[in-house]
Amino acid sequence: MHNVFLNLTHIFGRIIKYLEVISVSATWGKNFKITIFGESHGECIGIVIDGIPSGVELDDEMIFFEMSRRSSKGGSMSTGRREPDRTEIVTGIFNGKTTGAPMTVIIKNTDKISRDYDMMKSIARPGHADFTAFVKYSGFNDYRGGGHFSGRLTAPIVFAGAIAKQILIKRGIFIGAHINSIGKIEDRRFNSEDMCKASFDKLAKADFPILRESLREEMISEIENTRSTGDSLGGMIECSVIGLSAGVGNPFFESIESVLSSILFSIPSIKGVEFGAGFDISKMLGSEANDEIFIEDEAVKTKTNYNGGINGGISNGMPIVFRVAVKPTPSISKAQSTIDFLKKENVELSINGRHDAVIVPRVLPVVEAVTAIAILDMIL
Amino acid sequence: MHNVFLNLTHIFGRIIKYLEVISVSATWGKNFKITIFGESHGECIGIVIDGIPSGVELDDEMIFFEMSRRSSKGGSMSTGRREPDRTEIVTGIFNGKTTGAPMTVIIKNTDKISRDYDMMKSIARPGHADFTAFVKYSGFNDYRGGGHFSGRLTAPIVFAGAIAKQILIKRGIFIGAHINSIGKIEDRRFNSEDMCKASFDKLAKADFPILRESLREEMISEIENTRSTGDSLGGMIECSVIGLSAGVGNPFFESIESVLSSILFSIPSIKGVEFGAGFDISKMLGSEANDEIFIEDEAVKTKTNYNGGINGGISNGMPIVFRVAVKPTPSISKAQSTIDFLKKENVELSINGRHDAVIVPRVLPVVEAVTAIAILDMIL
Amino acid sequence: MHNVFLNLTHIFGRIIKYLEVISVSATWGKNFKITIFGESHGECIGIVIDGIPSGVELDDEMIFFEMSRRSSKGGSMSTGRREPDRTEIVTGIFNGKTTGAPMTVIIKNTDKISRDYDMMKSIARPGHADFTAFVKYSGFNDYRGGGHFSGRLTAPIVFAGAIAKQILIKRGIFIGAHINSIGKIEDRRFNSEDMCKASFDKLAKADFPILRESLREEMISEIENTRSTGDSLGGMIECSVIGLSAGVGNPFFESIESVLSSILFSIPSIKGVEFGAGFDISKMLGSEANDEIFIEDEAVKTKTNYNGGINGGISNGMPIVFRVAVKPTPSISKAQSTIDFLKKENVELSINGRHDAVIVPRVLPVVEAVTAIAILDMIL
Amino acid sequence: MHNVFLNLTHIFGRIIKYLEVISVSATWGKNFKITIFGESHGECIGIVIDGIPSGVELDDEMIFFEMSRRSSKGGSMSTGRREPDRTEIVTGIFNGKTTGAPMTVIIKNTDKISRDYDMMKSIARPGHADFTAFVKYSGFNDYRGGGHFSGRLTAPIVFAGAIAKQILIKRGIFIGAHINSIGKIEDRRFNSEDMCKASFDKLAKADFPILRESLREEMISEIENTRSTGDSLGGMIECSVIGLSAGVGNPFFESIESVLSSILFSIPSIKGVEFGAGFDISKMLGSEANDEIFIEDEAVKTKTNYNGGINGGISNGMPIVFRVAVKPTPSISKAQSTIDFLKKENVELSINGRHDAVIVPRVLPVVEAVTAIAILDMIL
Repeated sequence: MHNVFLNLTHIFGRIIKYLEVISVSATWGKNFKITIFGESHGECIGIVIDGIPSGVELDDEMIFFEMSRRSSKGGSMSTGRREPDRTEIVTGIFNGKTTGAPMTVIIKNTDKISRDYDMMKSIARPGHADFTAFVKYSGFNDYRGGGHFSGRLTAPIVFAGAIAKQILIKRGIFIGAHINSIGKIEDRRFNSEDMCKASFDKLAKADFPILRESLREEMISEIENTRSTGDSLGGMIECSVIGLSAGVGNPFFESIESVLSSILFSIPSIKGVEFGAGFDISKMLGSEANDEIFIEDEAVKTKTNYNGGINGGISNGMPIVFRVAVKPTPSISKAQSTIDFLKKENVELSINGRHDAVIVPRVLPVVEAVTAIAILDMIL
Repeated sequence: MHNVFLNLTHIFGRIIKYLEVISVSATWGKNFKITIFGESHGECIGIVIDGIPSGVELDDEMIFFEMSRRSSKGGSMSTGRREPDRTEIVTGIFNGKTTGAPMTVIIKNTDKISRDYDMMKSIARPGHADFTAFVKYSGFNDYRGGGHFSGRLTAPIVFAGAIAKQILIKRGIFIGAHINSIGKIEDRRFNSEDMCKASFDKLAKADFPILRESLREEMISEIENTRSTGDSLGGMIECSVIGLSAGVGNPFFESIESVLSSILFSIPSIKGVEFGAGFDISKMLGSEANDEIFIEDEAVKTKTNYNGGINGGISNGMPIVFRVAVKPTPSISKAQSTIDFLKKENVELSINGRHDAVIVPRVLPVVEAVTAIAILDMIL
Repeated sequence: MHNVFLNLTHIFGRIIKYLEVISVSATWGKNFKITIFGESHGECIGIVIDGIPSGVELDDEMIFFEMSRRSSKGGSMSTGRREPDRTEIVTGIFNGKTTGAPMTVIIKNTDKISRDYDMMKSIARPGHADFTAFVKYSGFNDYRGGGHFSGRLTAPIVFAGAIAKQILIKRGIFIGAHINSIGKIEDRRFNSEDMCKASFDKLAKADFPILRESLREEMISEIENTRSTGDSLGGMIECSVIGLSAGVGNPFFESIESVLSSILFSIPSIKGVEFGAGFDISKMLGSEANDEIFIEDEAVKTKTNYNGGINGGISNGMPIVFRVAVKPTPSISKAQSTIDFLKKENVELSINGRHDAVIVPRVLPVVEAVTAIAILDMIL
Repeated sequence: MHNVFLNLTHIFGRIIKYLEVISVSATWGKNFKITIFGESHGECIGIVIDGIPSGVELDDEMIFFEMSRRSSKGGSMSTGRREPDRTEIVTGIFNGKTTGAPMTVIIKNTDKISRDYDMMKSIARPGHADFTAFVKYSGFNDYRGGGHFSGRLTAPIVFAGAIAKQILIKRGIFIGAHINSIGKIEDRRFNSEDMCKASFDKLAKADFPILRESLREEMISEIENTRSTGDSLGGMIECSVIGLSAGVGNPFFESIESVLSSILFSIPSIKGVEFGAGFDISKMLGSEANDEIFIEDEAVKTKTNYNGGINGGISNGMPIVFRVAVKPTPSISKAQSTIDFLKKENVELSINGRHDAVIVPRVLPVVEAVTAIAILDMIL
């Protein structure tokens, strides 16, 4: 492999420049610290969670529910629910409660289809990390199914998020999200009535969580049509946190926006994050965008919430609101031009197999999970 | 003060919940580590930079140039250039070169206008951090001119960014940015011809760096008109990094997007960050969004660059491209509803004094600076 | 449990003060980052190693050898070699080589003796962490066999250390250690001839690695005699690193001494760390202690090495030398006074079962392992 | 300079191997985070403290007192008190109280004697960091008076420690220390009666804080005699923390021992750290060393305290006790052999000027300061 790579670098010239940079990127957080590991087609994937308070009785049902939200929804609305990943808590729990020591969760890769991955050894799937991983790791990365770069790694993150959520709920903090758009079909954004526990619960239980049910059919048929052409769709997700008191967060480098965006952009396929009105706020006048403040019933509120509940990096007591952009599933069966980076030649590629025509519904619980992890990390 | 605050929490109820959370947020980076300090109307602002390679001969002219880019441009295009902040390097330099020990830069607050800040003690300026800082720090924060939350803190960041840029340039890495929109007036985005050293240099030297010069007049008159009504505007900035080899960055928590967004959202007024096509990619088909790959002249390239030069968190050799949304300047002279948080009553507020009607041109060099810092931190 | 604990805090008064402090302590390192997990009598123990360069072909024999050094030697020299722990690499390896992604190693707790641990639920073994863990985790900790505090957790650390060693050896850096004392019987310290690869190899292979073989019998019979009285012994270990170039390390907070001591004191039972002449240097004159410098054969050397190869936190090219103090095994069968912290009463305790009368020989490879990890972390 | 260095590396061979490793070592802490900067003979030295709770009214007298303890005591007991360093708080304070934003303290280097430092450019003072700094920073380090490696950098640390102490005292936590030995003259160690607020206060106020006053004369005359021969002495310091509840600290990597030793070894001249009985515990039997536990007056105590108040890295409610070894002042006027590393030749060196014949009394308040910082960091 190494010889081949040397040849490659000879050809590609600049790509070897920083090869000695080692990847140390599997750990996130200060107070609720997570470390992920694993590959799509290796033995297992998993997570170590350090900083869980001791004495928490895990809500298995909730964890199962969150895991199944991530695993079940694919592009096909007709596909029956898949079973959620079988998780095994191997450390950090005793007599059914957290011990305070690191919790480790293992998810075995049981249903990896045995097939020939030799193609993936050298063909870069466009939109995937095949080529960049090859360069970064000098060709030693596990390329099967994307290896460590696989979206499967979000499963243990959802597990950690379920625990974080459970702890937040006890403190009166709730997280909800909805599909804000599928391709070009855009639903409305959260209004103030939507941001309450009841509404969040309803969304969490929905197969296809949108605000205007009338769009459901249109969105799903768009997904079906796209799938039938061998193509894929992206979309947007809007997420909100309620119950967070004013005063959480920090100025500058540990602002709520900095902390949240850092973990949101860790989710594969996320290419944009905006808080409050986000990019639209750049088109407003200051007098519109400023969110006038008032006291009502002894509580401080703002008339609008274009700043997404955050001023100067710190929560102001209004709901935290943000949106993320999810790119279309990169795995498509349509033919694409790409390269064979070992043979160093241009090739054409069609990716066969069952792929989600849209991953937005499955990314949604991951967005909620990382939000729970980040908020808990900030308040612990 | 404390008594008053206790009364306040009695009234506001939930806001005291997390008061014991202490702010530790002044330091960013692993290999090129910066620590900022200071208040708008205190003695000084400044920065400690740890991790500068030894033996770097500082390019004073470049630093002066970058500092003046940040300080000179306001909403008023007619306003003459203000002098850049007087910076003093007090440690880390010897015989005109960096020593490798921490470099400390102090910027004295010389021209703070002596006036009565008693109003700011209790009146929350909408869109500012006055109320959230009050809650976070139990009322002990320096409220004069926004204190530690002031945009002035970006001056030392630009200083550090200038050094980072200088080091990057020697490695063939260049950063450029342009004003992508002012209010609702939108310029085009970077095309592949724009992303070259010559074009970046031209933009850096421009008073008002836009791509389509024809929009200049329209944008400036929009700014003038808005100012005359006592209101303000926001806008978007697009930024690009060229010359970065493939293989920089990491999967998941230290992805280029995670690292960059974490520091970009540290800049006051930034409410959105998107990479490549960003939110628009969510409306594309996979076959469009995937950026087909090819080899040309022994180099790996992509036909389009909707992923902004990043796959799986790692650079692919194409230009890194991203956009940020800047909210309208929160300080406006138009009357706004807000609260007196000590008297606990609703009040009306007009903010007098000279304010930038738009801060987009001044935020632009800050965006470049933090980008330089983040990229250098990733490759050191 | 919680009720009981509340009663306890009622009685013990001050102990609940910082209960909300959460433990986040399982991760160490910046560039070669390890995260440990597990409990003595839970499902498994293990480690995640983030930052291993890709393409390293693991030297299984070396890993097995290091693991067996830790597991085999007990206080009883007569006891036959136990089999080393069965380790399973579940992530981060592909085609026999490291991928650059996090490596996860699992060691199943197969031979945990099934017995009644109810006693340990409330009886604090003196010298152990039973009482402090109870307080720290509000009684939710896994108390069986010390739980997460068990010395067993050093097994995965030795695994990581073996990989670090392998990488260091390729860079010409070697680590060696010897038993410097058992109880009051003290061997001599390393002299300059001892600090070479050949000598280190010999020590590593020795059952009972001491410098003066003549002390072997005396030490072993001291161990046997102590064991027969139901008591235990401690000792000292001296460790050295050769081949490290001058210029490694940092001033102040990341000095070699700071970094090494931080991980050395993570090993259970270590109560002292000293570099070079250590505590003895405090009794010298400056003219003795200063290690005069000279050039010989174009190399910079010092006549003595009382500073242990470190000046100002940075290596000077001479061997790094340090000693650690290991306390006597806390598990003894002799009767001891202690408390039942649930019943809140004084009790007497004899700990039955097979215990190492001295753990110094087993701690020795752990000391080498953390040294390898720390040195690699500093030079990567 | 660079050419010379290249020649040097040509000669010295291996020393350039890791030159690209950059020093990032100026920041310590998680919750009470300090960043130090400055050089002995540059403009100034100073510190940024991030994480001070807001609303703390600084006890100027206490800060002045702590600073003067560090600055006044030299080897010469006859020398009158020097004035403490003139410190200037330039950020983080408002209306006499901490704001919660980073506090920056600047100490100008006013009394640097103007003299010729050209000698120090190339002559390595034995026992100092001159040679290692030269190699680490490729010769660009500020060599005047040790530059960034100077013991002067401990002055701002004492400042931060004074604030930490003030906060700890309000929580009932007190820190005390005594000179445990000067050269070979050893005082007794703390007994249980010594470890109380009254005794700590008395020690803090003492010119020469020892337990057995009878040793005073002997120690001082030893210092005088050594000084008169142009030589220097080291010594030991014992330090204790009382009032710390059980349950503070963590297992493994964030054990109290790990955290404390990491910052203690950051103090220049410290070559050994031991907790409780330290190295002596290695000579005890388990039955002695285990610290039997009992309940008395509803409090949990141990009969002895050989573990220094720490089990499994966590406080057990007994006093934390530890000792550090301070090496003899490296600056001596006696002639020493050393090298000129630019000329690459062996030379002889006598260091003239006023030097402390012993720095133990001045290191003592620094030991207390870093202890306060570390303990506060662990409980915030």
